[in-house]
Amino acid sequence: MNRTEIATLGEFGLIDHLTKDIQLNQESSVKGVGDDAAIVDNGGRRTLVTTDLLLEGIHFDLIYVPLKHLGYKAAVVNFSDIYAMNGRPQQITVSLGISKRFSVEDLESFYEGVKLACDIYGVDIVGGDTTSSLTGFTISITCIGTADAERIVCRSGAKESDLLYVSGDLGASYMGLQLLEREKTAFDGTGDIQPDFSGKEYLLERQLKPEARKDIVKLLEENGIVPTAMIDLSDGLSSDMLHICKQSNVGCQIFEERLPIDYQTAMMAETFNMNVTTVALNGGEDYELLFTVPLHLHDQMESIKGVHLIGHISKPETGCYLVTRDGQEMQLRAQGWNHISDE
Amino acid sequence: MNRTEIATLGEFGLIDHLTKDIQLNQESSVKGVGDDAAIVDNGGRRTLVTTDLLLEGIHFDLIYVPLKHLGYKAAVVNFSDIYAMNGRPQQITVSLGISKRFSVEDLESFYEGVKLACDIYGVDIVGGDTTSSLTGFTISITCIGTADAERIVCRSGAKESDLLYVSGDLGASYMGLQLLEREKTAFDGTGDIQPDFSGKEYLLERQLKPEARKDIVKLLEENGIVPTAMIDLSDGLSSDMLHICKQSNVGCQIFEERLPIDYQTAMMAETFNMNVTTVALNGGEDYELLFTVPLHLHDQMESIKGVHLIGHISKPETGCYLVTRDGQEMQLRAQGWNHISDE
Repeated sequence: MNRTEIATLGEFGLIDHLTKDIQLNQESSVKGVGDDAAIVDNGGRRTLVTTDLLLEGIHFDLIYVPLKHLGYKAAVVNFSDIYAMNGRPQQITVSLGISKRFSVEDLESFYEGVKLACDIYGVDIVGGDTTSSLTGFTISITCIGTADAERIVCRSGAKESDLLYVSGDLGASYMGLQLLEREKTAFDGTGDIQPDFSGKEYLLERQLKPEARKDIVKLLEENGIVPTAMIDLSDGLSSDMLHICKQSNVGCQIFEERLPIDYQTAMMAETFNMNVTTVALNGGEDYELLFTVPLHLHDQMESIKGVHLIGHISKPETGCYLVTRDGQEMQLRAQGWNHISDE
Repeated sequence: MNRTEIATLGEFGLIDHLTKDIQLNQESSVKGVGDDAAIVDNGGRRTLVTTDLLLEGIHFDLIYVPLKHLGYKAAVVNFSDIYAMNGRPQQITVSLGISKRFSVEDLESFYEGVKLACDIYGVDIVGGDTTSSLTGFTISITCIGTADAERIVCRSGAKESDLLYVSGDLGASYMGLQLLEREKTAFDGTGDIQPDFSGKEYLLERQLKPEARKDIVKLLEENGIVPTAMIDLSDGLSSDMLHICKQSNVGCQIFEERLPIDYQTAMMAETFNMNVTTVALNGGEDYELLFTVPLHLHDQMESIKGVHLIGHISKPETGCYLVTRDGQEMQLRAQGWNHISDE
C-alpha cells in the first residue's frame, strides 16, 4: 500500500481529504462538516453541535497552565463556536483521558474551571466519559447549542460590498503564549526565580482565560442585526478570514491601520522583535468574532460597542488582501496551526 | 494540598465524585450525567447526546485491530448508547488525535470503517476535529440521536416484578479479545507464523466488528412495547445490571441457566480454563441490550425474536443476585473496566 505522509496535506488539507465524499442523508442534518458547528433540525429551532479535542503537549503545557484555567478555556472555546453561528450554547459533554500522575484534586481543579465557565455562560454539563490514559491528559468537549433557523449565521453568507467587523483586539493571546514560553524555565526551575508578569496581565488572561463573545451576539440581537457570515478567531485572522472568503466565494480587503491591537500586545511584540501586524493576522486563539454585515447597516453598527470595522468584502476575482499602511496589497495566507506539519 | 490517588475511587467512584454537584439550569436539559445518553428537549421530540473517548493502549491495540474495524466499532458503540435510550442515532462528530506514524492511507481506512457504519445505520458525519498527537491515536466520537419524549427509556424505570431480558448472547466479545491477546505474538512476530482463527470467527467478529441492536429496538416498536428500563452492555452484564438496579432503586434475580451463551464462547472459555458464567457476567463489550418490561407483557414478548428472558426485578431490599444452576444465590458485583485502578 502507498504511504502518503500527513504533512504533505497539512491540517486543512487532511480534513478536506477525509471528509470530501461525506454525504448527508438524514433529513435532520442541515449542515455538516465545514463550519464552526453542525446544524441539526428538529422541526423549528435548530440544534448546533461543535466539538474540540485538546491534547497535552499539543494544545496546552501543564507546566504553566493551571488546571482550573484549562477547564475554563476548554469549555469557553466550544461556547465560542456556538456564538460564531449566532447560537446560544446550552449543554456540554466533557470526556477526559487521565494519566496516573493526576490526583483527584487535580481533576477537581479542572472541573472547577469547567463549572465556572458553565455558570457564567449558562450552560449545563450533561455527560461525558472518563478513562485512563497511558500518556498525556486528553480533553474532548462537545457543545450543544440552539438557534432560530432564520437567525443562524454560517461562514458562507458574505456578499460583495458587505462590511467586515471584528470584535475586541487581536494577537494578545499569542503574545501571552510567547511570554509564558519564555518564562517557562522559571516555572520548571530549581528555585526562587519567579517570572515577572507585572503589566502583562492582559496578555496572560487572553491566553489562559479567554472569553467567548456572548456580549457581542447579544448586542447584535438587541439591535436587530443578523450578520451575513461569521466565524470565531481560533486559527488567526488570516486563516479564519480565508474560510469565510472560500465558503462565501468572495474576496476581501482588510486595512492594516484598522486592525485593533492592544497597547500591551504592541509593547510585547516590540520586546520580542516581532511584527505586530503579523501577530494580529496569524496569532490565533483570539476567540473574537469576525463577521460581515450589509453595507446599509453601517450606521446601525455604530451603536455596537466593542467591534471594529476592518475592511470589506469584494468580488472573488479580486482576491483576499491586507492593505498596508503604505498602500501595498499583501495577500492573506492560511497559517492555521501547523502541529501536524511541524512534527 | 492533599493528594488523593484516583485508584482509591475507581472509575465509577471518580465520575460520581466529579459530577455529584452538577446542577441542570437550562430548561432544555431534561437529563444529564448518569444514563447512556443525555436528553435535551427541543419542544417535542427529544435530542439524545452520547460521547465516547477511545485511547490507544487502553481501549484498543493497533497490533491486532485493523483501522477500518476500529472506525466501524468506534461509531457503532455510540449508536448503541442511543438505541439503549430507545432512540435513533442521526448524526456523529468524529475527533481524532493522530501521531506522525500514521499515513493518510491509515486515516482513510479508519474513515472507511466509520462511513460504513454510518451507511448501515443511517447516520450522518456532521463534524469533528483533527489534530496531531504526540503519543497514541485518540478517538472521540459524539452521537446525536432523536426520540419521542414518551418513548425514551432510561435506566431508572424498572419496577418490582418486571421481567428482565437480554438480546443476543454474552461473553463472545471478551473471548475474542482473549484470543487476540494470545495470538498477539504471531502478529508481532518475526515470521511466517499465522494465528489460527478457524472456527472462532464469531468471537473475533464480536470483538472487532460489533453491531448495535437497531433490529431489537425496531422490533419492540413494531410490537408496541416500550421497556421500563434499558441499558446497553458495555461493561458487562453484572455492572450494567447494577446500574439499572441502583438507578431504579430495585433488586433483581438473574438465572444462570438462562444466560444466553454461544457455543464458540463456551468452547473457548473451556480452552482458557475460564468459568463461562463469569465470562458472561463480566466480559463486557457485548453491546447487547438489557431491558425490563412489565410482567403482563410476557406473552407479547414471545414474538420478539433474539431476546432472552433471564430473570426479574425484585424489591430493593432483596438485593441483586445470580441464582446458580444448583440454586445458590451469588451477589452481583460491579467489575466495570478497571483501567484506572489497574495502572
